[in-house]
Amino acid sequence: MSLLIRGASQVATPTGHGARRGADLARLDVRPRAVVRCEGDRIAFVGSEEEHDRSFPRPDAVLDAGGGCVLPGFVDPHTHPVWAGSREDEFNRRLRGSTYMEIARAGGGINATVRATRGASRDQLLAAALARLDIFLGHGTTTIEAKSGYGLDLATELRMLEVIRDADRSHPVDLHPTCLAAHEVPPEHRDDPERYIRLLVDEIHPAIAASGLAEAVDVFCERGVFDLDQTRRLLADAPRYGWRIHLHADELSQLGGTELAVELGALTADHLIYVSEAGIRALAASETVAVLLPGTSFFLRSSYAPARAMVEAGCAVAVATDCNPGSSPTQSMPAILALACLGMGLTVEEALTAATLNAAAAIGRAGEIGSLEVGKRADLIVLGAPSYHHLVYHYGVSQIRHVVKNGRLVVRDGLRTG
Amino acid sequence: MSLLIRGASQVATPTGHGARRGADLARLDVRPRAVVRCEGDRIAFVGSEEEHDRSFPRPDAVLDAGGGCVLPGFVDPHTHPVWAGSREDEFNRRLRGSTYMEIARAGGGINATVRATRGASRDQLLAAALARLDIFLGHGTTTIEAKSGYGLDLATELRMLEVIRDADRSHPVDLHPTCLAAHEVPPEHRDDPERYIRLLVDEIHPAIAASGLAEAVDVFCERGVFDLDQTRRLLADAPRYGWRIHLHADELSQLGGTELAVELGALTADHLIYVSEAGIRALAASETVAVLLPGTSFFLRSSYAPARAMVEAGCAVAVATDCNPGSSPTQSMPAILALACLGMGLTVEEALTAATLNAAAAIGRAGEIGSLEVGKRADLIVLGAPSYHHLVYHYGVSQIRHVVKNGRLVVRDGLRTG
Repeated sequence: MSLLIRGASQVATPTGHGARRGADLARLDVRPRAVVRCEGDRIAFVGSEEEHDRSFPRPDAVLDAGGGCVLPGFVDPHTHPVWAGSREDEFNRRLRGSTYMEIARAGGGINATVRATRGASRDQLLAAALARLDIFLGHGTTTIEAKSGYGLDLATELRMLEVIRDADRSHPVDLHPTCLAAHEVPPEHRDDPERYIRLLVDEIHPAIAASGLAEAVDVFCERGVFDLDQTRRLLADAPRYGWRIHLHADELSQLGGTELAVELGALTADHLIYVSEAGIRALAASETVAVLLPGTSFFLRSSYAPARAMVEAGCAVAVATDCNPGSSPTQSMPAILALACLGMGLTVEEALTAATLNAAAAIGRAGEIGSLEVGKRADLIVLGAPSYHHLVYHYGVSQIRHVVKNGRLVVRDGLRTG
Repeated sequence: MSLLIRGASQVATPTGHGARRGADLARLDVRPRAVVRCEGDRIAFVGSEEEHDRSFPRPDAVLDAGGGCVLPGFVDPHTHPVWAGSREDEFNRRLRGSTYMEIARAGGGINATVRATRGASRDQLLAAALARLDIFLGHGTTTIEAKSGYGLDLATELRMLEVIRDADRSHPVDLHPTCLAAHEVPPEHRDDPERYIRLLVDEIHPAIAASGLAEAVDVFCERGVFDLDQTRRLLADAPRYGWRIHLHADELSQLGGTELAVELGALTADHLIYVSEAGIRALAASETVAVLLPGTSFFLRSSYAPARAMVEAGCAVAVATDCNPGSSPTQSMPAILALACLGMGLTVEEALTAATLNAAAAIGRAGEIGSLEVGKRADLIVLGAPSYHHLVYHYGVSQIRHVVKNGRLVVRDGLRTG
């Protein structure tokens, strides 16, 4: 099965098989009126229509881009897409002046989601996750990293990871599963957090590793949750389990999680609102990708991570939604791009690379997805606008017209097909 | 023709026929599982389905809200919806560090839009405006205030106002026209701004008043554009022309435009980022509505207006998109609500009143639109979510499922009908 996307105003993409750094983050390959040919689930050609027609047979199907811009599908490298319950009222209480601690004492916060998720069946969790994946896809996201972490006990963590596996199998969006059983100390261990850490190290992590349901592990390294030493112990077995490491680092205070992530050879350090200058230097000298979450800053009304300083220091920067019910309830990478530019000061080109190629690198898949190049997966979006700038310029209004995943048209004119 | 909206989780609306102030801004009437009946273009009933069925005959048509929340259609009280050209690249130059003055010297800024608009035919301007109105409507806006101001000469200002009149006649969205010929001093009068002011007072304003194409007048009162004294002269004839007054005030510096708006009995003072404490007190003691434009602050990466201080002082606060190609290229009131809450600190209830009833007051129509009450126009939206909180909570993802304008279903499942 071959598909030709023609009639585009431009095809714009970062290029390469690894994360881009510094000034390279802004370097897009922009080809006016180019066509893209998909063969099966791969990209077979990007270039002029004349050259295509000379070199390839007539395609099985044609998608008219209608003068829109063609971009790689978004990769969202930090999401928590499986949960039960909803917290829309709690957020409004925060706007009325309640603190997070007051909300938590009233039974809200992450514990409310843990309670609801523990009480939900696999089918309920799967149905909710699939509905969310439709929204991801409709906003141009074709691959996500997906964390567990609302179980905080073995049974529920396994159930969440099974839901992620089942969703990956049954939905066009690809999911890359991460075990985040170390998301928080659950209420039943609050009196003795070390007991929960031993449980994680001795039982939960080994059992999840044995299940094969996770390809990475993550820890919420933060004052009052897991400190640097505890985080180190929680991640000690990751290499043995074949798990890549993600780390929630320096989100609420400057604890040094970024430096620890680099020291451990983590694939990513995430959040980084309070990263130190030393942390930025360490990141820039490492292979660790900085995954920034401007939507969380926006939703929590906190500061943004120092994105410009990181880009200028030569860090590899990616952006993600952080999709979750408490601190960033969105699936929209276009919204994140707007916040990355207008909140954090990235240019549109930098933000686009951060949301595609560098986001692919943040899940260890930059050789496979994240750019429109021959041999990579045929994951792409067609905007209803003539240039990639409009993604941010026309903020608040979706520009995603069509989405192609693995060479198949899965969203046409904003609606799911097939 | 009667239409019954049933199957809603809740019907939520501010109430009254004038702007709400202070704590009243947060007071919504929320009725679980209520129905709304439209008769012709008016609301005939809001209440329980049982009571409806006892009191009314079977309706001609039924719209199933599918468990969604029903709200009044948004009123957008500050827009510039008629223009030619596009400035998406200029915005990215700003992100790369260029100043507004550098962009203006390179032929960009408002002068680029004036040049393109002067060169566009009425048909071209109308087609572009109608496409924008479809986007307004798809995001739940049923009425807008619409300014001229990219002509800055009599012929083009009249052409823009004719386009606004024609769009109002041919599109479901209602447009309320404002003459903003005093938007800027055009290039041909830059050497002698007083010459342009005399032209406005002696020729342009009188001719537009005689045309009957405007119901209000607006001036960009700002350092380097029109100062307080010039603004006063530009508005002196407004009462004689039967024009209500809007005023771009204290947007870029603290000039005292807010106090002037109050002194002149203006219907609104708009922007107010640099409003003084005296200005806030004057507003609170007046009938003038404060129209806040958080999207412009977001897009220009500037400060937000002190919305909380204004609410707490007892001002009547409305919010608007400021839709225009230079400083806020969006038609989305849901995006503005998110910025009003998460950027400016309003609660969801306050923001919703600011976007409906108070926005109606900001165009002098609070007796006619802006709330779901018997006798008002049947302009309403149905969310794809069970409570109004989701409008802001689920940021970046449109919650607008259906839109009813004048009792007719004009957007169904996000798509224009009829």
